[in-house]
Amino acid sequence: MARLVMKFGGTSVADVERIRNVARHVRREVQAGHQVAVVVSAMAGQTDHLVGLVREAAARHDLCEYDNVVAAGEQVTSGLLAIILQDMGIPARSWLGWQVPIRTNEAHGAARIMDIESDALRESLGRGEVAVVAGFQGIAGDGRIATLGRGGSDTSAVAVAAALKADRCDIYTDVDGVYTTDPRIVPKARRIPKISYEEMLEMASLGAKVLQTRSVELAMVHGVPLQVRSSFAPPETGGDDWPGTLVCDESEIMEQQVVSSIAYAKDEAKVTLLNVADKPGVAARVFGPLAAANINVDMIVQNVSEDGRYTDMTFTVPAGDLRRTLDVLATAKDEIGYSDLRGSEDVAKLSIIGVGMRSHAGVAAQMFRALAEKGINIEAISTSEIKVSVLIDADYAELAIRTLHSVYGLDATETA
Amino acid sequence: MARLVMKFGGTSVADVERIRNVARHVRREVQAGHQVAVVVSAMAGQTDHLVGLVREAAARHDLCEYDNVVAAGEQVTSGLLAIILQDMGIPARSWLGWQVPIRTNEAHGAARIMDIESDALRESLGRGEVAVVAGFQGIAGDGRIATLGRGGSDTSAVAVAAALKADRCDIYTDVDGVYTTDPRIVPKARRIPKISYEEMLEMASLGAKVLQTRSVELAMVHGVPLQVRSSFAPPETGGDDWPGTLVCDESEIMEQQVVSSIAYAKDEAKVTLLNVADKPGVAARVFGPLAAANINVDMIVQNVSEDGRYTDMTFTVPAGDLRRTLDVLATAKDEIGYSDLRGSEDVAKLSIIGVGMRSHAGVAAQMFRALAEKGINIEAISTSEIKVSVLIDADYAELAIRTLHSVYGLDATETA
Repeated sequence: MARLVMKFGGTSVADVERIRNVARHVRREVQAGHQVAVVVSAMAGQTDHLVGLVREAAARHDLCEYDNVVAAGEQVTSGLLAIILQDMGIPARSWLGWQVPIRTNEAHGAARIMDIESDALRESLGRGEVAVVAGFQGIAGDGRIATLGRGGSDTSAVAVAAALKADRCDIYTDVDGVYTTDPRIVPKARRIPKISYEEMLEMASLGAKVLQTRSVELAMVHGVPLQVRSSFAPPETGGDDWPGTLVCDESEIMEQQVVSSIAYAKDEAKVTLLNVADKPGVAARVFGPLAAANINVDMIVQNVSEDGRYTDMTFTVPAGDLRRTLDVLATAKDEIGYSDLRGSEDVAKLSIIGVGMRSHAGVAAQMFRALAEKGINIEAISTSEIKVSVLIDADYAELAIRTLHSVYGLDATETA
Repeated sequence: MARLVMKFGGTSVADVERIRNVARHVRREVQAGHQVAVVVSAMAGQTDHLVGLVREAAARHDLCEYDNVVAAGEQVTSGLLAIILQDMGIPARSWLGWQVPIRTNEAHGAARIMDIESDALRESLGRGEVAVVAGFQGIAGDGRIATLGRGGSDTSAVAVAAALKADRCDIYTDVDGVYTTDPRIVPKARRIPKISYEEMLEMASLGAKVLQTRSVELAMVHGVPLQVRSSFAPPETGGDDWPGTLVCDESEIMEQQVVSSIAYAKDEAKVTLLNVADKPGVAARVFGPLAAANINVDMIVQNVSEDGRYTDMTFTVPAGDLRRTLDVLATAKDEIGYSDLRGSEDVAKLSIIGVGMRSHAGVAAQMFRALAEKGINIEAISTSEIKVSVLIDADYAELAIRTLHSVYGLDATETA
């Protein structure tokens, strides 16, 4: 007997018939003798609908109230799945974030899970019940509902798996695994059978939509094996034979490519501050207020100062935060000191990822050369031990991805 | 300074624009210097939508999970109204049932409020905040969300008003008051400026949709003056000058009609048990299991036994409970002992109501005569000190209502 956490995203629970399909997946594992906790997202479109209502109510709004409204989506799904499981003769009950409780910090709208009291859940599993946990939500220290930010249901699932010391956390989604890049852009993209936590972490944070960054990070820290699977595969005949992608420790993967995947993100925006004073402390004055406003700043480029007094500073933020970023910086204009402020959403961030980079030189140079040959200008660069990211004009994104996928030998025809 | 509870139903909060209109009503009272708690329903159609999802999931379902799903509706409205109030510069916060907390019993799906801990709400009002309370919901002793049954937001409002010792509870709805009968059936129906708790209680329980029975009962017990008002009247210029209906103590009403209103209900169903043993204890065996299943039985008629051994028993239940009622009685067939079981929804219950009946004889006889003159057959009768109800064929309901409205001198042209 194993203890499993199964997570189903919005498209997998888009309507009652699909939730019934999810229940069949759950039944398969229950009948195999496993203890099962299920984490569910809101029905596809529901979160967008609720966010739309909040924005219609007021463009700027209290994030406590935002959380109160949008958490309703997962609440509905959890109840419906529990009802369908019961109807199949499988004991089940729903658990809302505050009922578990899943405790978060007070960063409403993008909260982090601090602690899960798993006693009640364990007792429920011990009684033979399937625990259906509403994803994406918890309760903050102020006693109010907090949501984990978009995609947070993956994080809920891994956190529940860690708290329950589950043997595996299966993330069911609308694709059958993690691919070398987006197959809609590169038809030759291949499914990756096994990938390390670190590579998956980079992929997730660099734009691959299949798993949420924080969830991979949590899985790595707690050593929870993550499996990405398709919820649209036949639920009864499935089981462990399906293809999918296992996210696990690097040591469990025998053969490594230098570059294992290409990620891209079009939901970033570029912000440029012109003529900022080139002296110590200016970065703190720029990024301090943004951090205080819970805005994640990504790539940062500071040009070399021509006269040693003023410089330009460019960085990226999530496109959805661009307006707020510009507001925050405009408010702090006198304190920061700059001549002009510009924002643009017409950029894409492309990244090559692979643990093999650690032991191979010249990987980045090969990337820059390939892009240059296609006439693609690089606006910013950032690197880590296992990835290289570049910011380019959004119009060239698809061309660049196809070029790099081929250059690094990832195309199916070349390797299969 | 007064302390007010304002309650807004589903049509008053049907979309964000209407919720903005609700916020203007609230602002008027805040600007008049009052402390205000607002109780809101789900946006029109939402509860039906959620109930539809639950039924699609499984026709027979766990009421705990039902509560979990449908409570999401009021949750959304409470957050949206708080956001809009804040956007108008009025401090506000939402309160879910479990946050107040509003404690209920464990009759999930149709729970009763047992207690409201009002300390946190009082503190919130004391800080100058508008408390926006999600109606229709509370938390049961099992730690799970419980809903009060359809229309329960009125009850929430009165219970909150009683707990806060509010000066008045204003129920805003899509009509401008309580009428002598449904104006869609009788265009000559008139608005009643003042009505006693007792009459309102009978009207609500006998089918008038404007207020929920339990809410009137609670208002009467706790002496909370209830005012029914239209949320579609202009919010800024309104205030105490509007027409409406005040539900108050009988002693505050100077002039009483013998019959003050005609109520009707088409959502009842008739159940008949044929050849039940005519001996002590049989009624307990019939109605015990129904009470255990939380089914409210209304009019009960037991025919005179011809041979002293067997009799027929007829009673009414809410039409929505008919299937469940027949199931319960079929299961208990051996225990009860009957030859056949029949159910029909083609009935209507008509009632005449008035505290004046206490001191006037012949009111019921006048009703029976008027119906007989129109050839309308009476299938069952039940009476109380201040009302007479009859069950008739649903096809004759409109004719009967118009006839009685005229017979008891309620038509506008005769009295205005």
